Amino acid sequence: MTPFLDLGFARVDTHRELRQGAPEAILAEGKTPEEVEAIARALLEGDAGSVLVTRADEAARAALRRVAPDAEEDARARLAWIARRVPAARGLVTIVSGGTSDAPVVMEARVRAELLGTRVVVHADAGVAGIHRLAPALEDLRRADCVVVVAGQDAALASVVGGLVAAPVIGVPTSTGYGAALSGMTALLSMLVSCAAGVAVVNIDDGFGAGTIAARIARAAGSGE
Amino acid sequence: MTPFLDLGFARVDTHRELRQGAPEAILAEGKTPEEVEAIARALLEGDAGSVLVTRADEAARAALRRVAPDAEEDARARLAWIARRVPAARGLVTIVSGGTSDAPVVMEARVRAELLGTRVVVHADAGVAGIHRLAPALEDLRRADCVVVVAGQDAALASVVGGLVAAPVIGVPTSTGYGAALSGMTALLSMLVSCAAGVAVVNIDDGFGAGTIAARIARAAGSGE
Amino acid sequence: MTPFLDLGFARVDTHRELRQGAPEAILAEGKTPEEVEAIARALLEGDAGSVLVTRADEAARAALRRVAPDAEEDARARLAWIARRVPAARGLVTIVSGGTSDAPVVMEARVRAELLGTRVVVHADAGVAGIHRLAPALEDLRRADCVVVVAGQDAALASVVGGLVAAPVIGVPTSTGYGAALSGMTALLSMLVSCAAGVAVVNIDDGFGAGTIAARIARAAGSGE
Amino acid sequence: MTPFLDLGFARVDTHRELRQGAPEAILAEGKTPEEVEAIARALLEGDAGSVLVTRADEAARAALRRVAPDAEEDARARLAWIARRVPAARGLVTIVSGGTSDAPVVMEARVRAELLGTRVVVHADAGVAGIHRLAPALEDLRRADCVVVVAGQDAALASVVGGLVAAPVIGVPTSTGYGAALSGMTALLSMLVSCAAGVAVVNIDDGFGAGTIAARIARAAGSGE
Amino acid sequence: MTPFLDLGFARVDTHRELRQGAPEAILAEGKTPEEVEAIARALLEGDAGSVLVTRADEAARAALRRVAPDAEEDARARLAWIARRVPAARGLVTIVSGGTSDAPVVMEARVRAELLGTRVVVHADAGVAGIHRLAPALEDLRRADCVVVVAGQDAALASVVGGLVAAPVIGVPTSTGYGAALSGMTALLSMLVSCAAGVAVVNIDDGFGAGTIAARIARAAGSGE
Amino acid sequence: MTPFLDLGFARVDTHRELRQGAPEAILAEGKTPEEVEAIARALLEGDAGSVLVTRADEAARAALRRVAPDAEEDARARLAWIARRVPAARGLVTIVSGGTSDAPVVMEARVRAELLGTRVVVHADAGVAGIHRLAPALEDLRRADCVVVVAGQDAALASVVGGLVAAPVIGVPTSTGYGAALSGMTALLSMLVSCAAGVAVVNIDDGFGAGTIAARIARAAGSGE
Amino acid sequence: MTPFLDLGFARVDTHRELRQGAPEAILAEGKTPEEVEAIARALLEGDAGSVLVTRADEAARAALRRVAPDAEEDARARLAWIARRVPAARGLVTIVSGGTSDAPVVMEARVRAELLGTRVVVHADAGVAGIHRLAPALEDLRRADCVVVVAGQDAALASVVGGLVAAPVIGVPTSTGYGAALSGMTALLSMLVSCAAGVAVVNIDDGFGAGTIAARIARAAGSGE
Amino acid sequence: MTPFLDLGFARVDTHRELRQGAPEAILAEGKTPEEVEAIARALLEGDAGSVLVTRADEAARAALRRVAPDAEEDARARLAWIARRVPAARGLVTIVSGGTSDAPVVMEARVRAELLGTRVVVHADAGVAGIHRLAPALEDLRRADCVVVVAGQDAALASVVGGLVAAPVIGVPTSTGYGAALSGMTALLSMLVSCAAGVAVVNIDDGFGAGTIAARIARAAGSGE
Repeated sequence: MTPFLDLGFARVDTHRELRQGAPEAILAEGKTPEEVEAIARALLEGDAGSVLVTRADEAARAALRRVAPDAEEDARARLAWIARRVPAARGLVTIVSGGTSDAPVVMEARVRAELLGTRVVVHADAGVAGIHRLAPALEDLRRADCVVVVAGQDAALASVVGGLVAAPVIGVPTSTGYGAALSGMTALLSMLVSCAAGVAVVNIDDGFGAGTIAARIARAAGSGE
Repeated sequence: MTPFLDLGFARVDTHRELRQGAPEAILAEGKTPEEVEAIARALLEGDAGSVLVTRADEAARAALRRVAPDAEEDARARLAWIARRVPAARGLVTIVSGGTSDAPVVMEARVRAELLGTRVVVHADAGVAGIHRLAPALEDLRRADCVVVVAGQDAALASVVGGLVAAPVIGVPTSTGYGAALSGMTALLSMLVSCAAGVAVVNIDDGFGAGTIAARIARAAGSGE
Repeated sequence: MTPFLDLGFARVDTHRELRQGAPEAILAEGKTPEEVEAIARALLEGDAGSVLVTRADEAARAALRRVAPDAEEDARARLAWIARRVPAARGLVTIVSGGTSDAPVVMEARVRAELLGTRVVVHADAGVAGIHRLAPALEDLRRADCVVVVAGQDAALASVVGGLVAAPVIGVPTSTGYGAALSGMTALLSMLVSCAAGVAVVNIDDGFGAGTIAARIARAAGSGE
Repeated sequence: MTPFLDLGFARVDTHRELRQGAPEAILAEGKTPEEVEAIARALLEGDAGSVLVTRADEAARAALRRVAPDAEEDARARLAWIARRVPAARGLVTIVSGGTSDAPVVMEARVRAELLGTRVVVHADAGVAGIHRLAPALEDLRRADCVVVVAGQDAALASVVGGLVAAPVIGVPTSTGYGAALSGMTALLSMLVSCAAGVAVVNIDDGFGAGTIAARIARAAGSGE
Repeated sequence: MTPFLDLGFARVDTHRELRQGAPEAILAEGKTPEEVEAIARALLEGDAGSVLVTRADEAARAALRRVAPDAEEDARARLAWIARRVPAARGLVTIVSGGTSDAPVVMEARVRAELLGTRVVVHADAGVAGIHRLAPALEDLRRADCVVVVAGQDAALASVVGGLVAAPVIGVPTSTGYGAALSGMTALLSMLVSCAAGVAVVNIDDGFGAGTIAARIARAAGSGE
Repeated sequence: MTPFLDLGFARVDTHRELRQGAPEAILAEGKTPEEVEAIARALLEGDAGSVLVTRADEAARAALRRVAPDAEEDARARLAWIARRVPAARGLVTIVSGGTSDAPVVMEARVRAELLGTRVVVHADAGVAGIHRLAPALEDLRRADCVVVVAGQDAALASVVGGLVAAPVIGVPTSTGYGAALSGMTALLSMLVSCAAGVAVVNIDDGFGAGTIAARIARAAGSGE
Repeated sequence: MTPFLDLGFARVDTHRELRQGAPEAILAEGKTPEEVEAIARALLEGDAGSVLVTRADEAARAALRRVAPDAEEDARARLAWIARRVPAARGLVTIVSGGTSDAPVVMEARVRAELLGTRVVVHADAGVAGIHRLAPALEDLRRADCVVVVAGQDAALASVVGGLVAAPVIGVPTSTGYGAALSGMTALLSMLVSCAAGVAVVNIDDGFGAGTIAARIARAAGSGE
Repeated sequence: MTPFLDLGFARVDTHRELRQGAPEAILAEGKTPEEVEAIARALLEGDAGSVLVTRADEAARAALRRVAPDAEEDARARLAWIARRVPAARGLVTIVSGGTSDAPVVMEARVRAELLGTRVVVHADAGVAGIHRLAPALEDLRRADCVVVVAGQDAALASVVGGLVAAPVIGVPTSTGYGAALSGMTALLSMLVSCAAGVAVVNIDDGFGAGTIAARIARAAGSGE
């Protein structure tokens, strides 16, 4: 049996969940709503535990609602998803963000991680310009199996957090800010040269990627309670 | 008691190992041999389990040899280190590299990870231009608690490996190649937009950073046998 | 007789087909519909075997329909064309693409190549994140006279394919993806430093250029059956 | 039998010639002379038709001389090679270059193409600032099965040649020039957006890549006389 | 008497024409229509020989029409102007452009140069992909007092023309093209490293700047017939 | 008592005014109107002396009007603010701008500085292309406690002013201009390498940042009359 | 009397100290030792209070020693200077640096500021990866009239300090680090988009510029005790 | 008779002087001394009025001395030249430079312009940080037929001069400065977006190109006295 479903315009990797513990997701940008719908159906028919559509405008989210009445969505984060068989949660991912504007990326990371079967705690708007605002997050940072830092502009939060915790830290630069923020490139570069060791980085605004690797790390490290 | 040692020109973070499970390391570039020597002594006096000097030229490595007769080194990888109390190994890190020229970065990642207390297996020169060369690595990739991919140029290996394994993947772009390789920037960007989810990336040639996060992931996930 | 037709705003190169075996095409961006129409008429009057309009919005496509009732078009690929005397097909071009979103660029390459007189086979969505999806394409890759790889993001597919086949490989980076994908620049750079030798690259999203050179290679190499 | 030879630090792809008609070559930069020597020996033992070392300084070239007394070399082009069983020449590659300083890259393309079994004609210093200097090349351009344009600075030669010939054109941007030449990046970008269709491009200074694809194109298209 | 008129939001340099032989012009982008109108009035009251508004959308052009019923305009080139006392024409500027899409920039250069008092001849769409299309322009290129080359993409036309004529050549890169054209940056860099000496360059799409310097050169060099 | 107010999506730093003499401001971009409104209310309840919303579209400004009937605004500068207890003015900030299009950024700097309690004088459109236009500003430049230069394009004004005055100079590059202006990046780089010492620079279009530091400098240096 | 001294190759601005309170300094890079010597003599003859040579290699420092036996120097910071009439110190500048490697830039800022007549306190190696190391600096940060933050890599220290103090903060990005540190460009961009308001930035490694503006700010704000 | 001399490695354009009034010059970088020597001999045999070698190290200059005992040279400007039949001087070129370090580029422009037959006046070190230093140049600026501005860093001098004179202005950005000077790219971009109209720009450090176009402009405009 072939380990993918050939739709002509797409070859849906229905064995990815089996192979890697995480089902293929659908990046809606660049796809027609009809394509989103067809791929989502194929994934469900391929017995995916969940289906997640990212960077989904209203038309793409509507496409997913046509696939399943139990589709959930978050318009601001441009997400839609169907949760069928989410694994029992193992491990803890703590997400901290630098500012209010990072909320959509935080949500994308959170939903992805939860669909893969881990617990997620979020501390929003803890940027270092008022470093005392990080205090309430300290306990959740220390007990986390993996920490995700979502921050734009200078992304200094990644270094500060990276210097405090013993868990692996995944940085997600965001495209907030203007001018020399360079649509997130400055935050990306900044996180990559963080003076704290033990920080690894995903693409700008890539909450999905961060959620994926964070869930893997946390599930392997964490207990199931 | 202050949690750091003030040398005037440097404030040595002697509590980092306690706080984060990994001692501060010494980036030799930009420091005089005398500074390297003094910081190394301070770390040992602060009871560090190990001391690692990276990007160390001959003078910097000689400085470490003055500190301790049991200093080890690797000239090509520009490393020198002193291992005093390395934690019992837990977990497995599998490192694959794209080409022969990536060897110094592989070595930096390996030494750092081993000093932090994890087992490391290396498969060198498994680049995708001859994808069958990856075959002997498959078993070690699948049983790894964390995979590190070290690759320059187009860094395609990160996506291929990232699509095969269930473990977290840390990508280390290298500065090999010329022209459009842009001293490793192309490999870095390429890994960041890898079509495989679950890959996170460290700085160009940053074997040290990769070794740090990989060891944390592997130790938390792995067993101690 | 002058080898071009002077329309005042444009000098239509009516001898290009004679000189180079491929008629001049019309890049619609930056031209008014009236200009597109006038150039298309001039090409037909200059006895062009075919007329192809690329990056054509609805107004530009309508302009071509006004020129000839037998104009064909593809809205998503922003193409319109008139096929009058297409040379008998010689040789085989195999196109593989990395993802569903690359479809418009694939179509542009395909139409151009077919108008120049070659056979084209397409394997869509064969990206390396699930490398087994490439398996059904292997036979068509091996019997091709020229291979075209259309891929965005990290464009790792170009290296994998480039390491498998003996035919010349033309890479077309696409502008899919976000953040560090840099509107296709990362895919472009990545293909240029592909670790597989024998890959040459055209501009981002330039299906037209890829179709042109691929048809030339395939026609010269291929048989006519 | 494994299709590669494992040297520990390298996995030599001894089947590449069989699979792709062109043996693996050795990029000397980043490798020690000992590694170059060992890989060259492995290739010869793997029955390679030829061995080519690129970007080879004197030490790397000496390493090849140690492998075989019949090693040839070109110091300025930083090349060394051993020709054992070069296929009978088929097809014609015509190389034109923009200026005298492009000579090393021309040589790299020429040697690679000849080792793969094709005839090569070179017209040096035919840049468009004195376009009449291109005249003596016209006949060789028109009878070529593949044309290679080697040019730095603005690389305008690629467009002029690309507008004249019916054969596929491979552009090789070079790192000559200063300031806004950006070490060859301007020539690279310029060739990629050449106003002539049918031009595909390889990496900056990558005579090796150009020779590889040009030989493949020419051999498939050309006759053997 | 102050040599400028203070409007509060602007200090109109009414002596520029006296000082430099060319009146201040109005870049409409970033100004409100009311500001455009007020500055234009001030210039006329300051006895400007002409008023030129560049990058003017419909609202900005309407503002100029309110100032004077004899305002002229060109919508595609986003220009509006009032000609009151244009100096008697001296000298000849020949403008050649690479493609049809460069027309708006050509028009901006032409209008500016004519308002400053020089004759202008235009040869459009003479790009080097069909270099014979340049033939009809040769005589006008040779008798010009200044040549302006307007070209996008690889801007190879600047080098070809720069190698043919004895007059000073001003290059205007344009933002046509896509992908690696980088919104005109590639054309700009390419012109700056033109292999033809005697070419100087203005900003991307800056027909205004080119018209200004070309008119100065031509008027000083040319006769008044 | 916690020194911030936790709104769930935001942690409002209500002690910033106490700690740093300047209340937190609200960057509207990336926030919903509801979030702007809630943060503004929290700041007022936290007893902020003033509330300033920057980069505020109509919806964001309306949100502030809902918070307080005494909200003021400037649509072109995308500002809205509430002034409750502005400190008595101390010191003088003189702002000079290069062109009319810089007006919104000038306004942002002015409002911020005045809300922090300093006097502000503005000289608009004093760009160096007509350097005599700077003359009326000279006295205000010399008596200023801090000078702010707002300029786009080549930002040459910063060097000219920087060479004239004894007070600290803060440069604000603006995103005016096109092509090689690179959305303000050229002005930014240019100010950073100003040949006048004593100039420091803030982000592109960052009138807010300039107003903040200028007010601090001027208040510390200035008298209160 | 002319306010500068014409040496032929240089016009020494002998009135700068009078006009701006700070004498012209000599950037040694790009100047011959003879030129450095002649300019230094001219400045002393022009009655400069001090002479400072920056980026001075051994030959340039020797040139200054030839000018005056009381010349002082710092080889690692590439500085040489002659202090004749330094103004009585007013105000306090506190400098904090991120790491040991930033020492030369710290020294350049310190010497310049002291020569202009202000007191300077330095806290080295207080990077945020171990944020407790900042504690001993807090008092000096709070009582400073101006704070200078010298930091490379991600320069996160600028945001942390910028969020703590009420004084103006001047950021100096340094070129320490490798790969994505981009020779200091990442630190520069990062400081420019610092999430803390009230930070202004000078060029990479520009301790001289920071010392200049910091001394001006501190002297104006500070008392003379 | 062919209008060029074929040396095998080079095609010397011996008709360029006839065709364009300026002989081909030799860019020494990338050429061997033997090639420089052979090309120089060919030019002299082709009856060139002068021979100019740019970017010439000692070996290249020695090569020219071997060609002719009357060769002149300037080591700091890396120039060597032979003047045989320089046209009678017509017109005046005034060169102003921003700083002492721009001297080599000034010299390259001067020698080239003089060899083409024009008078040259130089005002060095007139940068705008002390704008009064420009005063002695004003008369020569106003009577010039063409002005050349040589400046690095922010190149503000180009705008200031461009706003003062009626003659065409050619800007030459230089690679002086460090950090954000970006090896001259900032000066280049800055000149391109100069707020003064009538400025055109050549490549970074390209005194040769500036001298060429300036001489053409000045000779056409100027009288022969």
